[in-house]
Amino acid sequence: MAITMYDLAGVEADRRFSPFCWRARMALAHKGLEVETVPWRFTEKDKLPTPNDGRVPVIVDGGTVTHDSSAIAEYLEEHYSDRSSLFPGAAARGLTKFVQNWTDAVLHPAIARLVVRDIWAHLAPGDQDYFRTSREAFLGAPLEDVVKDREARLPAFRASLLPLRRTVERQDYVSGAEPAYADYIVFGAFQWARSISDFELLAADDPVYAWRGRMLDLFGGLARQSPGYGG
Amino acid sequence: MAITMYDLAGVEADRRFSPFCWRARMALAHKGLEVETVPWRFTEKDKLPTPNDGRVPVIVDGGTVTHDSSAIAEYLEEHYSDRSSLFPGAAARGLTKFVQNWTDAVLHPAIARLVVRDIWAHLAPGDQDYFRTSREAFLGAPLEDVVKDREARLPAFRASLLPLRRTVERQDYVSGAEPAYADYIVFGAFQWARSISDFELLAADDPVYAWRGRMLDLFGGLARQSPGYGG
Repeated sequence: MAITMYDLAGVEADRRFSPFCWRARMALAHKGLEVETVPWRFTEKDKLPTPNDGRVPVIVDGGTVTHDSSAIAEYLEEHYSDRSSLFPGAAARGLTKFVQNWTDAVLHPAIARLVVRDIWAHLAPGDQDYFRTSREAFLGAPLEDVVKDREARLPAFRASLLPLRRTVERQDYVSGAEPAYADYIVFGAFQWARSISDFELLAADDPVYAWRGRMLDLFGGLARQSPGYGG
Repeated sequence: MAITMYDLAGVEADRRFSPFCWRARMALAHKGLEVETVPWRFTEKDKLPTPNDGRVPVIVDGGTVTHDSSAIAEYLEEHYSDRSSLFPGAAARGLTKFVQNWTDAVLHPAIARLVVRDIWAHLAPGDQDYFRTSREAFLGAPLEDVVKDREARLPAFRASLLPLRRTVERQDYVSGAEPAYADYIVFGAFQWARSISDFELLAADDPVYAWRGRMLDLFGGLARQSPGYGG
């Protein structure tokens, strides 16, 4: 029986843009597991199976509910240990945490400040007020003000990708010759932006752009087929 | 027969401060290999065994000369594959590259701008002119000017450690439960600073400080016993 995954959606039900949901979606594909996704909006907290923390991704596998992308990755690795590993080898789980913490601490905040207004524009009407109010409180400014100088900030953003750039220009994936969960973590951030914004985060000659292309090609083009912009 | 390692030294022959040499030194200890170090100064390029690229570390194992810290790690992993791995598991080598690229692109330049004047102060007289001239050309300013506002820059430096901090506050090492080469890469940067500067890069309650303490304790306190300042 397919695993069910609650997945953040925009005004169109098939526009899936949560970076954390993309981590889980790619991990499920890595494990070769069938999944049926359920589009979910920020304001539908009562529609999630329990237990949950009011956010997605949440997966249901048989009778087992697991929430939080990191917990889902651990669950999949443990319960489907006979399939391709998300953390291949004794040190991969630990090292993947460093990649995750860089993504969460450096990459996500920077991308949010470039595309947050575009996220709002793609939300279902019932989600827009919730999103604007909560994000403007967090960011301390109207969404339009947060992004208004984004062209000027783009060079610094691209410069901040140097650790990632040097890595994927010398090996195909963050994890080496084959993709693993660390790749899905970083990719989730770029797929988040790509899903809701036509603002070009990456120059076409950037090795990070080529890596993103390899990620979009994985699993029969799973992520490329999802509604989004650009390469 | 012990492996010979050419190791950057200050005015005192036992003050070893190169971050790249510390990567190699810790990797040799990780493999449980005996090593005899040869103190070497920047201006002694003709004293290195060949082939070399004019820099250290260089190791000689039997008749085999290997230079460059990354090449040395690869050499040790291949030639001593029966000993504890520096890259445990299929993905560790790839993921370690990300940690290395973060260290080289983010951590080293930031630390250099905090302690470069202190490096100069600890060099042998014959090295000081070479170091000042080459580094001032690279940094575009007198060493004294580069560091003069370092107190003001310290909070931003500490903030930039967030990916590392979040990692080592939840697991003992960057590589997980046990240290591996990724830890030696990051540690090399802090040991570099500690070896030549009393400027406190880390607050005593920082999880990064505690991790550095665990690294200093490894291999019978190998790095702690080397001349340096503070914790």
